[in-house]
Amino acid sequence: LSPVCVIGLGAMGYGAALSLLRAGFDVHGVDLRADLRQRFAEVGGKAMSNPAEGARGCQAVLIFVVNAAQTEAVLFASDGAVGVLADGSVVVACATIAPNDAVRIAATLAKRGLFMLDAPVSGGAAKAASGEMTVMAAGDDEAFEKAGPLLNAIAARVYRLGSKPGAGSRMKLINQHLAGIHLAAAAEAVALATCAGLDLRTVHDVISHSAGTSWMFQNRVAHLVNNDSSAGSAVDIFVKDLALVLDAANSWNFPAPLGAAAHQLFKAASARGLGRENDIAIVKLYPGGESAAATRSR
Amino acid sequence: LSPVCVIGLGAMGYGAALSLLRAGFDVHGVDLRADLRQRFAEVGGKAMSNPAEGARGCQAVLIFVVNAAQTEAVLFASDGAVGVLADGSVVVACATIAPNDAVRIAATLAKRGLFMLDAPVSGGAAKAASGEMTVMAAGDDEAFEKAGPLLNAIAARVYRLGSKPGAGSRMKLINQHLAGIHLAAAAEAVALATCAGLDLRTVHDVISHSAGTSWMFQNRVAHLVNNDSSAGSAVDIFVKDLALVLDAANSWNFPAPLGAAAHQLFKAASARGLGRENDIAIVKLYPGGESAAATRSR
Repeated sequence: LSPVCVIGLGAMGYGAALSLLRAGFDVHGVDLRADLRQRFAEVGGKAMSNPAEGARGCQAVLIFVVNAAQTEAVLFASDGAVGVLADGSVVVACATIAPNDAVRIAATLAKRGLFMLDAPVSGGAAKAASGEMTVMAAGDDEAFEKAGPLLNAIAARVYRLGSKPGAGSRMKLINQHLAGIHLAAAAEAVALATCAGLDLRTVHDVISHSAGTSWMFQNRVAHLVNNDSSAGSAVDIFVKDLALVLDAANSWNFPAPLGAAAHQLFKAASARGLGRENDIAIVKLYPGGESAAATRSR
Repeated sequence: LSPVCVIGLGAMGYGAALSLLRAGFDVHGVDLRADLRQRFAEVGGKAMSNPAEGARGCQAVLIFVVNAAQTEAVLFASDGAVGVLADGSVVVACATIAPNDAVRIAATLAKRGLFMLDAPVSGGAAKAASGEMTVMAAGDDEAFEKAGPLLNAIAARVYRLGSKPGAGSRMKLINQHLAGIHLAAAAEAVALATCAGLDLRTVHDVISHSAGTSWMFQNRVAHLVNNDSSAGSAVDIFVKDLALVLDAANSWNFPAPLGAAAHQLFKAASARGLGRENDIAIVKLYPGGESAAATRSR
């Protein structure tokens, strides 16, 4: 199966590529950003800027870009990976995308004789780097068979959600619905705690050991109090992901008041110019939030 | 310090009383409900229905009732505990109450020569029963000293939040703010997952190992899928607790859109007649929620 191509070397893609290197694969890493290519080259990867170049000679491509448009571009554009992939190769689509997009992309790939796994991931940058992501995957048995050694290298858990692409992306939307609400709730809670005169380090410790805890609270409030900048992605990622959640909910006539409220908060933060900041920057929407956000520099 | 009195033998109070028995204390357990008294007597406790009777001969009283009004009643009513407590005894106030109420009750007790710990707890029924609660406590050094052996018996972690009553209750409100939002988010997510055609047992497993997880999600969705009726309290508890959170936030001119949205959902569930059901019953507000709530009986 070697070489294998990883497209997108952000936090999750870089972690996956690193895990594949560690497992002994020859890894082609593709990214438009020179700084991300350099980081990858420094740990022994082959870094490239063009999907077709990266996919040449590979029977498997893992895609860790931001959305469906980018996923389709790196596959189907004039310099896309699909043009150079041999029949029967497998595409592992790991971006958070709409379930309908996953279904459509899989169908297009199938027409070209390629397999696809609809395989979004979760777990954060640290688990990605240690090869312990969670993968929520759906696709043909053949796709699972071909991608198996790769998934084992990057993931602690691979959930098989059936043979139909779309199920992986639907599960990922449930995860993002919760993650987005929990992140906004963590911001609201730490700002409230600041107004209540409580010390944030103590709040992080107490809540982490109480019924009010969440993965997001533990991870992102640690970011605030310990200056752990490895945690978190950007505010705009949740603007995008919660929009996907609400689009899907709308298509099922499902009212999601909490998901919608969290989405409004991320959009408000983005409108304030915080879109590219770490996602916990939405705490700055709240009274006491600027102070809470500055905890780490004290 | 033996005997010691525990007033309120619901999930948390019963767990505390059990832990104290296990630690070798002679425990007087007080509750108005005969079934709860009987459960406590069956495990070797002395069960009583009257606070003054329960507190007689004790130098320490732990209070696990529902709110501030009940806390004041069991202390200061004509058959209240305060009338029989010797000077220098300690009252450990564990109910979720408004910070201002904690301050006022502590001042009243101080005038009578009694110490108070403002000491709300968290962790759920299972941790209470195993003596592993989390205690968020504030009060005089003397209060901590007198209550120390009791807290060690009931808690895995005792956080000392300073000498001024009110800080424990403020921390507990931060916990309830998050717990309430996470619980409502879990309900919204499992109903959404049901509409998405996902299997709830799989959703529980996947999300529990992903960034979207929370203590509430793990605990209450387990209740849905495993028929674990020991998890959770009543819908009306969160109607009450989120009202305390929002009252405090209002007093600080703090806007809490997510806390307020979650509160509205619990109130909607209560208005629908679900107030005394397990708190995860708010899932029934959502399309697919009745089906999700029935998972355990399938």
